[in-house]
Amino acid sequence: MRCTGSLVHPNLDWLRRRCAADERVISLGGGLPSSDTFPSAALTRAFNRILALPDSLQYSWPEGREGLRRAISGRLGKRGLSVAPEEILITSGAQQALDIAVQLVTKPGQRVAVGPTSYPAALELFRLRGLSVQSSIGRSELAYVMPVVDNPTGLALTPEARSRALALADFVLEDDAYADLGFDGVKTEPLASSARDRVFYIGTFSKTLCPGLRVGFLVAPKAFASRARAMKQATDLQSNGVTQALVESYLECEDFDARLAALRVFYSRRRDRLLAALRSRMPSARFEVPAGGFSVWVETDFEGDEVAFLAVAAKHGVSFDPGCDFRAEPACGPSARPMAFRLTYSSVAERDIEPGVCRLERAFSSYVGGLAQKSREIGGTATQNECFAQNQEVTSMRRDSI
Amino acid sequence: MRCTGSLVHPNLDWLRRRCAADERVISLGGGLPSSDTFPSAALTRAFNRILALPDSLQYSWPEGREGLRRAISGRLGKRGLSVAPEEILITSGAQQALDIAVQLVTKPGQRVAVGPTSYPAALELFRLRGLSVQSSIGRSELAYVMPVVDNPTGLALTPEARSRALALADFVLEDDAYADLGFDGVKTEPLASSARDRVFYIGTFSKTLCPGLRVGFLVAPKAFASRARAMKQATDLQSNGVTQALVESYLECEDFDARLAALRVFYSRRRDRLLAALRSRMPSARFEVPAGGFSVWVETDFEGDEVAFLAVAAKHGVSFDPGCDFRAEPACGPSARPMAFRLTYSSVAERDIEPGVCRLERAFSSYVGGLAQKSREIGGTATQNECFAQNQEVTSMRRDSI
Repeated sequence: MRCTGSLVHPNLDWLRRRCAADERVISLGGGLPSSDTFPSAALTRAFNRILALPDSLQYSWPEGREGLRRAISGRLGKRGLSVAPEEILITSGAQQALDIAVQLVTKPGQRVAVGPTSYPAALELFRLRGLSVQSSIGRSELAYVMPVVDNPTGLALTPEARSRALALADFVLEDDAYADLGFDGVKTEPLASSARDRVFYIGTFSKTLCPGLRVGFLVAPKAFASRARAMKQATDLQSNGVTQALVESYLECEDFDARLAALRVFYSRRRDRLLAALRSRMPSARFEVPAGGFSVWVETDFEGDEVAFLAVAAKHGVSFDPGCDFRAEPACGPSARPMAFRLTYSSVAERDIEPGVCRLERAFSSYVGGLAQKSREIGGTATQNECFAQNQEVTSMRRDSI
Repeated sequence: MRCTGSLVHPNLDWLRRRCAADERVISLGGGLPSSDTFPSAALTRAFNRILALPDSLQYSWPEGREGLRRAISGRLGKRGLSVAPEEILITSGAQQALDIAVQLVTKPGQRVAVGPTSYPAALELFRLRGLSVQSSIGRSELAYVMPVVDNPTGLALTPEARSRALALADFVLEDDAYADLGFDGVKTEPLASSARDRVFYIGTFSKTLCPGLRVGFLVAPKAFASRARAMKQATDLQSNGVTQALVESYLECEDFDARLAALRVFYSRRRDRLLAALRSRMPSARFEVPAGGFSVWVETDFEGDEVAFLAVAAKHGVSFDPGCDFRAEPACGPSARPMAFRLTYSSVAERDIEPGVCRLERAFSSYVGGLAQKSREIGGTATQNECFAQNQEVTSMRRDSI
């Protein structure tokens, strides 16, 4: 399960935690990397090396470790983004980089443009900072994009969408979190390489090493670099010294590119299994084949309450991320929109993928069938009240367990 | 040296970095814990234990590890603050806890009351968040206090000052970072225990284990708890999984109270040596004996530019933290106020304490003598222009090295 709570729907947060705590539930939600891929042995070697470096345990400068910034600079150069180590600010994951950038260039009430769907934690951040979230790339103070591998769709932005973001927004947040996990390799240069003065480029090791390390980074336009550093310092002084040193040492001593190649094989194989199961078990579900990342965005033809559907799915022993969590409009609950959801293939055991999709199909049939039956009983189509009744089920489940 | 840059005085930031990089300079600045005390062996044991817990590397919930929160709850109970683990939010150091609290209860333009001197990174945060910083505890939206061991003075708040903070401010930030390092033990209960609905209680393991771990915590008033968690999540999703698990495992398997007792002996011994050197070498310097913590606040009778004096001191091979960094008024530079500074005894090697104070005394004589001579030459007292000339020296040092 995704481990961040939902500000949008308290029941959703509760359901997530309940599913995560229940080992009988197969999780097709969460968007987590696979724990099976975590390089524990290499990190242990790195830990033993860095303890010889007492500076990792001491306070350090807000911009982060120089050796780590040099290594990132080298890697970005190969991606086509030429930045000096001095231009890189190490952050506590990509999320903090987003927050710093948002605070530097926006004011409450301004607009941030995202796609029709976007990354939930970014959407929650934008709402918390008082921004008006627009569900298409239009004229705005800020655009938020994941150009190479989007979350939740796993697709690359089209060249037109890239151009539109640069043309219509004053500033762009370019979140490149999954770029190294494009299954066919990365073919496009970062947006930042063509507009360094307006693009905040954001990266992370959360998807490619481990999220628990909380090592991300921000490349701010030069005019904002010193303010970004001051914001970082005021916010939490500096990023974690121990895990910065771990990543630096890992990059120095291990073959990170070989790891990335192996991860691409690992995750694309899970993607293929999930898509095969979807095609065979839920042929009515619509999706585009993800070009990378951890998950697939699935659309259905049935209107309903995605959170209520998740509650039904949890009873069938499977979980997913409801579509409402990914939309600019913060309403989860009964809706006249066809239901959609994100399915994560990255973190589910391979042997659980097909059973998980089977359970999902049964839950879907049960939920949609239930709606249809109620609809027949009152001689109409499914109404908001019935969806609400389904939602009540979540509340009563909650009471049961307390 | 303190490793955070100064927003107040760019030369000061540059000077700090220069001194930190120069091994010939004895640092009596910085306010860092001693690297000699870092429990590297115990942390290595903990690291080997936690790698058996794969959850430390994965994403986790924004509030932080449950076992760690339980351990903190137990320790706070012994301090006289009864809070459930659910009321504790793990943060990326105490600084992030401060920032979250400030964002929850203040708006730009409101007042935050601090003492005549206060912790520089908190002052910088307050300025960044647009607050008006008041240098005495008076009627205000927020008061920031370190009731048990204050930074920079090392003193406890008087009972009257404790009462005044609670009576005159709508909300109180209680920063208890050094409380475990009160040399005679902690004798007072946290302010939070008498006003849980208005006090944000903040703690950290940065002073008692290692700062590089970035493990702090916030106990918000109950009415703010869920918003604090949402702010944490939007800001950086969660605190570092690896170092949270390290601290949890350390607390479970090692004798932390024995460590604290040893640290109190260690640091009080360094305090005694520094104070003895000050009394013998700089008898005109005025200070109160710190009751705990890492440093002593020293006042002189001479007006001057504290940053210019630091530049002179650096040439004499010693550094310190100029008083301007600790004052509510953000002006560093020539001033009609007698010079003051913070001397840190925690992180300087014991054998360097006396030589460091000797160098400081020579630098002080040189700086004050220089001011007096210039004053005689133009037949008046030291003026702003002369102080400015001293300050130019910093700038020319900077050019020399580039």
